[in-house]
Amino acid sequence: MTVTHAKGFTAAGVHAGLKKSGNLDLALVVNQGPLNAAAAVFTTNRCQANPIIWSKQVIADGQVAAIVLNSGGANCYTGPQGFQTTHATAEKVAEVLEVSAGDVLVCSTGLIGEQLDREKLLNGVTAAHAILSQDAGPSAAQAIMTTDSVAKVAHHTSPSGWAIGGMAKGAGMLAPGLATMLVVITTDAVVDSDALDRALRSATRVSFDRLDSDGCMSTNDQVTLMASGASGVSPSESEFQTALTDICMSLALQLLRDAEGSSHDIAIEVVNAASEADAVEVGRSVARNNLFKAAIYGNDANWGRILAAVGVTSAEFDPYDIDVDINGVSVSRKGQPDQPRELVDLTPREVAIKISLNAGPYSATIYTNDLTHEYVTENSAYSS
Amino acid sequence: MTVTHAKGFTAAGVHAGLKKSGNLDLALVVNQGPLNAAAAVFTTNRCQANPIIWSKQVIADGQVAAIVLNSGGANCYTGPQGFQTTHATAEKVAEVLEVSAGDVLVCSTGLIGEQLDREKLLNGVTAAHAILSQDAGPSAAQAIMTTDSVAKVAHHTSPSGWAIGGMAKGAGMLAPGLATMLVVITTDAVVDSDALDRALRSATRVSFDRLDSDGCMSTNDQVTLMASGASGVSPSESEFQTALTDICMSLALQLLRDAEGSSHDIAIEVVNAASEADAVEVGRSVARNNLFKAAIYGNDANWGRILAAVGVTSAEFDPYDIDVDINGVSVSRKGQPDQPRELVDLTPREVAIKISLNAGPYSATIYTNDLTHEYVTENSAYSS
Repeated sequence: MTVTHAKGFTAAGVHAGLKKSGNLDLALVVNQGPLNAAAAVFTTNRCQANPIIWSKQVIADGQVAAIVLNSGGANCYTGPQGFQTTHATAEKVAEVLEVSAGDVLVCSTGLIGEQLDREKLLNGVTAAHAILSQDAGPSAAQAIMTTDSVAKVAHHTSPSGWAIGGMAKGAGMLAPGLATMLVVITTDAVVDSDALDRALRSATRVSFDRLDSDGCMSTNDQVTLMASGASGVSPSESEFQTALTDICMSLALQLLRDAEGSSHDIAIEVVNAASEADAVEVGRSVARNNLFKAAIYGNDANWGRILAAVGVTSAEFDPYDIDVDINGVSVSRKGQPDQPRELVDLTPREVAIKISLNAGPYSATIYTNDLTHEYVTENSAYSS
Repeated sequence: MTVTHAKGFTAAGVHAGLKKSGNLDLALVVNQGPLNAAAAVFTTNRCQANPIIWSKQVIADGQVAAIVLNSGGANCYTGPQGFQTTHATAEKVAEVLEVSAGDVLVCSTGLIGEQLDREKLLNGVTAAHAILSQDAGPSAAQAIMTTDSVAKVAHHTSPSGWAIGGMAKGAGMLAPGLATMLVVITTDAVVDSDALDRALRSATRVSFDRLDSDGCMSTNDQVTLMASGASGVSPSESEFQTALTDICMSLALQLLRDAEGSSHDIAIEVVNAASEADAVEVGRSVARNNLFKAAIYGNDANWGRILAAVGVTSAEFDPYDIDVDINGVSVSRKGQPDQPRELVDLTPREVAIKISLNAGPYSATIYTNDLTHEYVTENSAYSS
């Protein structure tokens, strides 16, 4: 049920005509209250799309009535005309819902540097408004897809009487900070916007921020959390945090599994690091090493490429006291070969890399994909 | 004539038996003096191969009598046994040449984590010594090749009576700091080791260090410069610097052109930067963006991916005052589309990207390749 799993939300997904395929390309999610609390995190890319610039202003007061999202165009590097399109979209949503445009978030995804067709977009808002319903979460999730092969959705109902659910899109450009992803999570718990903000930052830090499919960071990423309070239940901060983090991790791993052209999902667990930051830096360096990623595609347990990637980081370690396991096989111990690499079975889609830095008690896991012929095809054969 | 172009050097390339293909796999280059001056720069990867650890000790006093290089194995992460193999190789060269092992550099290239066959290596040294000649520069250049499709060589003769020449290997893992490259440059100019060191660092900073084929840095990189003084000529520092930089740039561009599976050579020129470091950072970020590299492979002038890569740097710029040209076509000006991307002809191998940050007077060019099916094949189909 995605964004309409929690009470107090309606949604719609329509074909506004932005995608030539005829698929759904505009989603609207409306918070019917009684609360209008919200929080959002944005791409840290300094080149930001017009909807990001707009949405940062909207979220400043923690009040959001609705969010409108389009696929079929990023509205990034489109100049004043592009910003006016974002603004007009928010105004149109405000008009049909009779709310303030300053309470309407806008997200876009697609090709950079091309103008969106404003008329189609505004007509799409009208059409979406006409079919808003409490059952349309799946349609909304369909409407934000670009090269995704499946919609990403998750939900949870607490025994204490509140619920949370979400939708996500993103199949490439998955990267640090945030992956090209648009995520909308809704809850009917009674949580104020400051608490939502804390919880969302904490959850994204260990979920979406640990996804690094291809090292490329988008200009359009946004993760939004909205609370309606419609359940009347105020969960404890820890209960809410746990549920939110679980939803984020579920959506993040769905993004990973659907990453463009990938044939392996790789979890790089860095243990015994001197700090969490060290563990993240080492994991990310390995996740971005094209030679390592190509080796995994070839089912080759080439642990030398892992150590070469570890060696370019500034993390604390002794280069000759690092241990590497691949899918449970100890392939290198203390700077020397251990078990033969041929013992590693890399035929399953799931790959577990474990790197012990033997420098402290901290750990972190970074998730990535392999580098495949299909990745190159998908990213060279057409613009996206 | 590569490393035997300058007077005072002999060389040999032999098949020691390390490569199963039967190709040449061991090179020996001997400085016959009267000078034994030398300088070297090494990978900045903290995971360093045994020959790197050895050679750093050898170069400390600026005196080098000979350098021995093998392909067919990196001798990296091979523990004490591997270091003893490097040491034994230097001792063997010292024995046959009647010099000190402390004046013998060792380089290795190939797969990480496997022991070299010490007996074959030492017999190879004996065989190479037996055929040392002033004509064997090309054989030596052949013997250091791994996945290279051609040997990389360059030479120059000064009208003032001195000469310089070199050889290089490297076809993948080309990266910052240094690419997996072994480079040996020889000169018969009279230059002391301190001046060689200054000149080499200055030359590599703007040549090999600006090559970033796939963002991956090797554990075995070494660039060595040796001076015999056999010409009796002491060139001015600027004349020597210019000739050395030209040789380094020639070899660097040969490495680029032969990079594994590439179909485009891409020069990313960053101009009007607030500092040279900013220009380098921006160029390198674009050079490492897999989505941009895949787009170039697909002959798609996808400038949005360039700006997205610029946006993750810390360089000084206004995101909406950046200009991008691709092969001479102005595709984006000040955050807006300019000429249609379809006007860009990306069919030639050479691609020129020009990014103006409009923030200052500095510039730098980073050289990279596209991301191709063939790159994935070469790096997944077998271990290297």
